[in-house]
Amino acid sequence: MPIVRTKIDRADPAVIAGLAECGVATVHEAQGRVGLLASYMRPIFRGAKIAASAVTVSVPPADNWMIHVAVEQMQKGDVMVVSPFSPSDAGYFGDLLAGSVMARGGVGLIIDAGVRDIADLAEMKFPVWSKAICAQGTVKETLGDVNIPIVCAGAIINPGDIMVADDDGVCVVKREEAAEVLKKAQARIANEDEKREKLNAGVLGLDLYKMREALAAKGLKYV
Amino acid sequence: MPIVRTKIDRADPAVIAGLAECGVATVHEAQGRVGLLASYMRPIFRGAKIAASAVTVSVPPADNWMIHVAVEQMQKGDVMVVSPFSPSDAGYFGDLLAGSVMARGGVGLIIDAGVRDIADLAEMKFPVWSKAICAQGTVKETLGDVNIPIVCAGAIINPGDIMVADDDGVCVVKREEAAEVLKKAQARIANEDEKREKLNAGVLGLDLYKMREALAAKGLKYV
Amino acid sequence: MPIVRTKIDRADPAVIAGLAECGVATVHEAQGRVGLLASYMRPIFRGAKIAASAVTVSVPPADNWMIHVAVEQMQKGDVMVVSPFSPSDAGYFGDLLAGSVMARGGVGLIIDAGVRDIADLAEMKFPVWSKAICAQGTVKETLGDVNIPIVCAGAIINPGDIMVADDDGVCVVKREEAAEVLKKAQARIANEDEKREKLNAGVLGLDLYKMREALAAKGLKYV
Amino acid sequence: MPIVRTKIDRADPAVIAGLAECGVATVHEAQGRVGLLASYMRPIFRGAKIAASAVTVSVPPADNWMIHVAVEQMQKGDVMVVSPFSPSDAGYFGDLLAGSVMARGGVGLIIDAGVRDIADLAEMKFPVWSKAICAQGTVKETLGDVNIPIVCAGAIINPGDIMVADDDGVCVVKREEAAEVLKKAQARIANEDEKREKLNAGVLGLDLYKMREALAAKGLKYV
Amino acid sequence: MPIVRTKIDRADPAVIAGLAECGVATVHEAQGRVGLLASYMRPIFRGAKIAASAVTVSVPPADNWMIHVAVEQMQKGDVMVVSPFSPSDAGYFGDLLAGSVMARGGVGLIIDAGVRDIADLAEMKFPVWSKAICAQGTVKETLGDVNIPIVCAGAIINPGDIMVADDDGVCVVKREEAAEVLKKAQARIANEDEKREKLNAGVLGLDLYKMREALAAKGLKYV
Amino acid sequence: MPIVRTKIDRADPAVIAGLAECGVATVHEAQGRVGLLASYMRPIFRGAKIAASAVTVSVPPADNWMIHVAVEQMQKGDVMVVSPFSPSDAGYFGDLLAGSVMARGGVGLIIDAGVRDIADLAEMKFPVWSKAICAQGTVKETLGDVNIPIVCAGAIINPGDIMVADDDGVCVVKREEAAEVLKKAQARIANEDEKREKLNAGVLGLDLYKMREALAAKGLKYV
Repeated sequence: MPIVRTKIDRADPAVIAGLAECGVATVHEAQGRVGLLASYMRPIFRGAKIAASAVTVSVPPADNWMIHVAVEQMQKGDVMVVSPFSPSDAGYFGDLLAGSVMARGGVGLIIDAGVRDIADLAEMKFPVWSKAICAQGTVKETLGDVNIPIVCAGAIINPGDIMVADDDGVCVVKREEAAEVLKKAQARIANEDEKREKLNAGVLGLDLYKMREALAAKGLKYV
Repeated sequence: MPIVRTKIDRADPAVIAGLAECGVATVHEAQGRVGLLASYMRPIFRGAKIAASAVTVSVPPADNWMIHVAVEQMQKGDVMVVSPFSPSDAGYFGDLLAGSVMARGGVGLIIDAGVRDIADLAEMKFPVWSKAICAQGTVKETLGDVNIPIVCAGAIINPGDIMVADDDGVCVVKREEAAEVLKKAQARIANEDEKREKLNAGVLGLDLYKMREALAAKGLKYV
Repeated sequence: MPIVRTKIDRADPAVIAGLAECGVATVHEAQGRVGLLASYMRPIFRGAKIAASAVTVSVPPADNWMIHVAVEQMQKGDVMVVSPFSPSDAGYFGDLLAGSVMARGGVGLIIDAGVRDIADLAEMKFPVWSKAICAQGTVKETLGDVNIPIVCAGAIINPGDIMVADDDGVCVVKREEAAEVLKKAQARIANEDEKREKLNAGVLGLDLYKMREALAAKGLKYV
Repeated sequence: MPIVRTKIDRADPAVIAGLAECGVATVHEAQGRVGLLASYMRPIFRGAKIAASAVTVSVPPADNWMIHVAVEQMQKGDVMVVSPFSPSDAGYFGDLLAGSVMARGGVGLIIDAGVRDIADLAEMKFPVWSKAICAQGTVKETLGDVNIPIVCAGAIINPGDIMVADDDGVCVVKREEAAEVLKKAQARIANEDEKREKLNAGVLGLDLYKMREALAAKGLKYV
Repeated sequence: MPIVRTKIDRADPAVIAGLAECGVATVHEAQGRVGLLASYMRPIFRGAKIAASAVTVSVPPADNWMIHVAVEQMQKGDVMVVSPFSPSDAGYFGDLLAGSVMARGGVGLIIDAGVRDIADLAEMKFPVWSKAICAQGTVKETLGDVNIPIVCAGAIINPGDIMVADDDGVCVVKREEAAEVLKKAQARIANEDEKREKLNAGVLGLDLYKMREALAAKGLKYV
Repeated sequence: MPIVRTKIDRADPAVIAGLAECGVATVHEAQGRVGLLASYMRPIFRGAKIAASAVTVSVPPADNWMIHVAVEQMQKGDVMVVSPFSPSDAGYFGDLLAGSVMARGGVGLIIDAGVRDIADLAEMKFPVWSKAICAQGTVKETLGDVNIPIVCAGAIINPGDIMVADDDGVCVVKREEAAEVLKKAQARIANEDEKREKLNAGVLGLDLYKMREALAAKGLKYV
């Protein structure tokens, strides 16, 4: 039975903003190296860096009806996360829908399928992470669901989870763990800043991380 | 028997110019969602937007001899469309050939295989849509055909058909249908301009397209 | 038995610099159309053009310990070449390691796997050619080897071989053949400059390369 | 924090046996066309047809330590479901592990990665659905989890969910919905038997399903 | 405008039967190495060897309505050839449809998408060449066309063309050329029988085909 | 300069026979988990299990001339190993060539490309491991090399190296290391037989391999 959940919980906007600053690689490490979407999810232009609450959309292959339904469920600061329930690279989303999402305060799209009008989307500065760029049109014939748990590019996304996305790809953070993950990510950054300085100055990772002994113990030989 | 057809019909240049302005997604929709080449056909640089008459070339795998033959058949405003008859990602085409095509007034290349010298091609502003970027050289040993119907990236291309290509990919329009498709595409754009304004202003697609009733009739539930 | 070879021979820096100028497509042709890495090896940003001595690293899947080991073996003008011995797209390398490599005078990374922090790497102007962009973190548990012959993206790389890389991809030149290949590449460029001028002026390749007779002999018909 | 959940709920064995008989395509339809794993999941030999409770295993790339841990959690009638948290085709599982699983009453393996010793597994009649057949060995260095929710080949699997697998692929049925899905699947089969007889006798689907009017209404023309 | 062409021309049944005996590789060579469908088209079981007149079906992604329409257009000895107009691996066809096709005298299915119920299809000895085996169900919402020219797995198929299919894959022969191609294929077989005998007796191809001189002329050196 | 090396060293036939019995997975482990060809190399029929000295062939894309040259270099017990220097799935090899190879005592083919006539090859019991099954014909226009080091499916193969191949795939053993690897492989088998008995009797790997302590030390929790 196709449904639209109209009420979802969202994380604290300050936490979300913090995660955006940390970026995908750091957040992914901070939460124990989980939550990454498949690496085929690429941005349509470089330089965007967002974190946002997921409005999830489960769509039939090559049918974008439910995306229109999902727009109404978006609030300021949300990102739409779309996954077809049978693989499809069709172009479910273009500049008209982007304008509609922006009018509601939405900040981007993450779609395990195709997107089109990318020249316009780039000009509108509307960031998209997608599996394909494809002009193939879709129909509006079959229902799907909005705001149910979905699998997008190999990761489980619950509505209201935080999507972190930048040039490195996309990572999902569970809503309930967001504050904790942010703390760990920020600690990681502080720690990395210190390391970066030393490494840039020529200190070797072998010495900085004190790896030489462990390597020798495992049997590494220099010849 | 390998052949070169030296006479092909071309569409009205004004129609071709009109299709270029409409772009791939719009033209593809206007002609009933057909004619799209596979989404793996990507531009080597962003921002090019062309429409042009196809000079078709059927080539052996990793052999670019017939491309040299095809150059002679090109006229001002044509695009070369190349497809190997057994799959190959080799780099059939580079900056020397691009210079030769440009000298004849050719406006680009669409190739279901590889291209090379892309830094030079970008500097020359010679647009290419290809399956791969690959420096692998080719031989000149085996014949193919010029200006016969070919399958390129999953679409049938007849010589003289109009290729429309931009950042979204590549679409083919049959020569005989070009004027009709242009009319529909232009009507679509006019119609979209109006919709865009409303959607950008916050009117929901659900209301603009009057979808609510149909969705309910199909059984969609809000919870 | 995992090993690190600490002494490798390198080619003459002047030869290496010459190969960088020639570029991948020309060098690949000059050495008889061999040595190209698979075309899925793409640069993380456009415009880099390098040639450098290979420090080779054979790594376990999703384990980047040996990359830290390899940094110490790098000298000014070297490039790190990494290949996992079971396929993996994980992100073995990011901005911290890049800083460390740059501190030793290293000029880039070629990796048959994933890389991350690409926004930072682009800002640092640290060029990478990789199979994937992927934030997936790695462990430091299992040994591999440094400076042994490896297969990277389908090509055999010996430590000290010269890697030539640009927007077209990556090519390897055997160290012992580098000077000879450079000569042939430079001759090729001189020859191409002349051809380019003629082709740009409208002389057909059919005439410039005197192909018409051979084509007719093979049976090509104009209709 | 890596964990092993030692207690999981399982569905009624009679329901599980019923689902096995229905097969993947029917069960998938009966539960509303959801729950299918990606079509790259193929059996290592034809003719196996199982349904079983999932013991889930989340493993690091190319590390099969947790599979040894998971064996202990298996009970009679269970199937092991393995997914690496970074993509890998390594051969995590062979005949020794299969013997161990069979000793505990386990009935098969579903793995979003590679398997090896397939000649032995076929002789042992131990069915496996996998992404790859690959002899690449794995290490035992890094922890993962047993009996947590995982994503396997694009589907969410909770421990204790029922995996239905046959020559068509693999489908997951949520434990709580298993009885209901079985009823619908059995109804579907009864209904299909009747249809099959008519179709085999030459009655057209167009007539049996009364499609002609709907087709005409949509605009289908016979010419 | 979706259409069904109800009258198509078919080739002489004797010619079709002759082509079946020749097999894919021979027929493909006999007609000049063209007409092969992409190599991802694989039989669901080994040993089938057919030639048949194509009833072509252009279907929307994940929608099998038109297949029901196409069944009615099939005659004794026909094969159904299905291609979605946007890529899809869904399972458009199963045992019920196969029974319906067999009731009309149809001899198989060639589909650039998925098929399901393959255990049943194998038992029914109903051969299928497909891109995927996939249980994913389809809808019946959108029209397509029957008996128009289609592109299937990279080849142009006109209704009434002869499809030749065996363990090596699938090849299409244009209806008008079928008799001519058969003659060449049969000549080829006669010629091959003679060669086979000599090669099996140990005569080298180098001598049988008199290649040594040509190889030397091209520059081959024995060292 | 294309060459044919007419003299290559081969390993002791008894060692080669021993490796065949051990099989791919065991041999690969015995030599330190290296030497495996990519997992896309699949047998055209199940049940073959060979080890043989490699006669290597480097071929142009879609050109099988050098295979005819290589046949003459084969001796009793050899296997032909073919790799194109630009990727190609064409069908380089069929039943005529297989008969020729068998007449010289050759025992199979390993090819990083396509093969055809597989129904005949199966009947002849001529085993092939290939990347593709493809009927696409090839030309005889361009030279390559015989018995030079090649990269085949990601592995370095030297002429005279031992190829071990079975249902699990293909592994290469360096000629000089063959005797040593055989010893280790046989020891491994002896050791596995003992383990197999215990595991089949229900002893857990956790206990047999004494893993519990190490797991706890790494932090694994049972909940």
